[in-house]
Amino acid sequence: MKFSGRNILSVGEFTRAEIERIFEVADRMEPYAHRRRITKVLDGAILGSMFFEPSTRTRVSFGCAFNLLGGEVRETTGFESSSLSKGESLRDTARVLSGYSDVIVMRHPQAGSVAEFASASRVPVINGGDGANEHPSQALLDLYTIRKEIRHQGRAGIDGLSIGMIGDLKFGRTVHSLCKMLTLFKNVSVTLISPRELSMPADIVEQLRRAGHNVVESDNMEQSLSVDIAYATRIQEERFASLEEALMYRGRYRLNKRVYTQFCKPNTVIMHPLPRDSRAEANELSDDLDDNPNLAIFRQADNGVLVRMALFVLILDVVDQVDLHARDVNWYTERRF
Amino acid sequence: MKFSGRNILSVGEFTRAEIERIFEVADRMEPYAHRRRITKVLDGAILGSMFFEPSTRTRVSFGCAFNLLGGEVRETTGFESSSLSKGESLRDTARVLSGYSDVIVMRHPQAGSVAEFASASRVPVINGGDGANEHPSQALLDLYTIRKEIRHQGRAGIDGLSIGMIGDLKFGRTVHSLCKMLTLFKNVSVTLISPRELSMPADIVEQLRRAGHNVVESDNMEQSLSVDIAYATRIQEERFASLEEALMYRGRYRLNKRVYTQFCKPNTVIMHPLPRDSRAEANELSDDLDDNPNLAIFRQADNGVLVRMALFVLILDVVDQVDLHARDVNWYTERRF
Amino acid sequence: MKFSGRNILSVGEFTRAEIERIFEVADRMEPYAHRRRITKVLDGAILGSMFFEPSTRTRVSFGCAFNLLGGEVRETTGFESSSLSKGESLRDTARVLSGYSDVIVMRHPQAGSVAEFASASRVPVINGGDGANEHPSQALLDLYTIRKEIRHQGRAGIDGLSIGMIGDLKFGRTVHSLCKMLTLFKNVSVTLISPRELSMPADIVEQLRRAGHNVVESDNMEQSLSVDIAYATRIQEERFASLEEALMYRGRYRLNKRVYTQFCKPNTVIMHPLPRDSRAEANELSDDLDDNPNLAIFRQADNGVLVRMALFVLILDVVDQVDLHARDVNWYTERRF
Repeated sequence: MKFSGRNILSVGEFTRAEIERIFEVADRMEPYAHRRRITKVLDGAILGSMFFEPSTRTRVSFGCAFNLLGGEVRETTGFESSSLSKGESLRDTARVLSGYSDVIVMRHPQAGSVAEFASASRVPVINGGDGANEHPSQALLDLYTIRKEIRHQGRAGIDGLSIGMIGDLKFGRTVHSLCKMLTLFKNVSVTLISPRELSMPADIVEQLRRAGHNVVESDNMEQSLSVDIAYATRIQEERFASLEEALMYRGRYRLNKRVYTQFCKPNTVIMHPLPRDSRAEANELSDDLDDNPNLAIFRQADNGVLVRMALFVLILDVVDQVDLHARDVNWYTERRF
Repeated sequence: MKFSGRNILSVGEFTRAEIERIFEVADRMEPYAHRRRITKVLDGAILGSMFFEPSTRTRVSFGCAFNLLGGEVRETTGFESSSLSKGESLRDTARVLSGYSDVIVMRHPQAGSVAEFASASRVPVINGGDGANEHPSQALLDLYTIRKEIRHQGRAGIDGLSIGMIGDLKFGRTVHSLCKMLTLFKNVSVTLISPRELSMPADIVEQLRRAGHNVVESDNMEQSLSVDIAYATRIQEERFASLEEALMYRGRYRLNKRVYTQFCKPNTVIMHPLPRDSRAEANELSDDLDDNPNLAIFRQADNGVLVRMALFVLILDVVDQVDLHARDVNWYTERRF
Repeated sequence: MKFSGRNILSVGEFTRAEIERIFEVADRMEPYAHRRRITKVLDGAILGSMFFEPSTRTRVSFGCAFNLLGGEVRETTGFESSSLSKGESLRDTARVLSGYSDVIVMRHPQAGSVAEFASASRVPVINGGDGANEHPSQALLDLYTIRKEIRHQGRAGIDGLSIGMIGDLKFGRTVHSLCKMLTLFKNVSVTLISPRELSMPADIVEQLRRAGHNVVESDNMEQSLSVDIAYATRIQEERFASLEEALMYRGRYRLNKRVYTQFCKPNTVIMHPLPRDSRAEANELSDDLDDNPNLAIFRQADNGVLVRMALFVLILDVVDQVDLHARDVNWYTERRF
């Protein structure tokens, strides 16, 4: 298990031991992310943040994670203005831009582009999403959230859990990645709830089954919610051929207080990769659940910072130095808690 | 008077004592803003700067103020790419993004949006302008400038002053806010100079009168300039129904050297929220006044940094620590003076 | 030779001694840019980075250089949203924005704009490119690269070298600036290789000749490549009247392995200001040369950081303090080497 200098490109590249190492390091980032302590372990380091496709919260979450470790962030957003539009190859872009930072996070609309970039980069590269392909830090934070919520309920971990995934399972990159990571665990029951036209790709279902998991597919949400984890998703409008087609599915499934009370387990954890579509015609996860302590969606977003901090300290090989460069926070933070 | 953890949303929320406290703290920021000393009091803190509507100088002024205190800034600009455009509620956006920073400044085109955001935020929020509604830090820096310029002339303060406001008083958010803050002071003479169609809203005039101030409305600039403070404004083209309508008023009032010499007091202080429109057809404040020592418009912009630093140290409760984390500047700064 | 507080606007403002001073300081920045050491000499300082025209790598290179010295960067990109579009004069913009930083780098599409801005700025201004006019840090990094590559070959310096410039010599700002700087040196042989319609402006050719240099113009690349330095350029599509016109010249000259082996000297150094256009129809500098140790294009980009760091420490007058605020890097950096 070696993280120093490594690229983070795909969920498929991790062993179970590596994932558990990432999560253990993420746990240790809590005092810093929760603003009780600050660390300057990466004081003087530069993150090159390159978002050739917009994604405010992924970008800010990575940038914040790097700042929380004491480092600086240099950002590029948008594509039109870049050298790529003047015919530069991704490899050239990588060779130049990797001279300007210590680690890079990159998002790009084209599948495979981040791996190509990484192959020419002189510093480690983290995939912040390459089109419909991969978004490994999102998958890691989802799995980390499941582990944390379940442990909070006094259970051991992910082996043996039951998980329901709801909504657009065809285009939802996050549920694809989550399924792939679940193949590293044992005896998980996976219920895939979607309109038939938006069902989980067959090869991913097959991977789950080969891992020994019990997989059930259904287009009836209510009868399928007796699970430990209910993972709702947004209709990925931007991935459909037309908006009209996407709108056919918006609002098909709605997880709300009534449904939760009637069909979920007493402690079913509710997750969602966010943003949730709160417009009346969609409302896939109603805000009448916002007071439910099992609604984990905002803790899930917070966990993204922990996981991204963990990735940075692991690939830059400073895990054991984090606490050495630390002190207490000296400003007001009470409202946070 | 409690500032720790407080949102800064509206000029109406301050008492006179609170305003004086902000100004006193702003005074203490001078050595840092003027680059004689640096402080690292907010070393490790993160400002989330969210400009869903563009405003270069407000954004840079806030960011600079936070950097001058030793903190980091993570910025978001633009709206199209944000999760709000995918149907996310402002409250969800707030809950997520407030996990990424210690304090937030937000600008948004829609009145009331920043307050709604703040109600769900886990960290203090400063309103950087919400449409036609409020822009409290601008109002504070205007009032701070008046106090500072008048004191520089050897007078005590704002009570008893005479102020002329010139131009688009209907849409000019800065003059609205300034009037509201003046109601906290005593015996101010306010002359409102505008085309009748762009006159100050009646409710604001009424507030001034109820505060005991003497208010005169006029559409003749030259006969109304015998004041301590002349506050010129730009026609807010972007707030009119059509550009044609806005152009009818552009250039109606022009404060220049000839007018100043003939009609102003010897030491009338000239203010303007900037940018001033220097195109020949507008030229509401001529550059032939640039050598006049009473032209305070650039000092006014500089004061914005002081006031914003003061807001940050007050709501993050580090006022008394600022000087403890300080040292002299070690690089070239002479050209500044 | 005085750098403190100076603007960097044009290549024409430097003496040979000044250029050599810049290069000597750039050499001393290597341990920091190569991530062996970090320095905090500009801890607390703010760079105002104003790119009114997009240029990702120039912007990131300057920002990175400032971060590497321990300073913070506040960026503005784009023009539409700026106060300039509301009729503000460049001088007003300068007076306001220079209150927010310790040094400014500015790029703007209009020739002469940066000099106008600088004349009103209260802090030093570096020209990051003003339209077709100047881009002095690019010219300095090109010359610095020539000096470094030639020294690496065991030769003394730039006097007496032979240089071929290839491609769009009419619109290529970088080759114009490079020629102007070469007039400070002695006995250089300059071969100008371009289609006749895109030849070097006559006044620049004249300047080279007046400096005593031997200048040859040619539209035949292969017969002109027996030089110490071959400097290839991209067709500046964006400067032509129409794309059709630009496309007439794209792909006219192609420097590749076959051409290099057959026509260049054994150690001809290959340079290019980047981005190179790697699309099949252009391909002015083939990637089949990427393994050639004389391909200096990525070292050239890296040198940009060194030169920009040198400019910052010189104009902010902290050259002798850089090493005093330094320590070893504490994170993983091996992949870089």
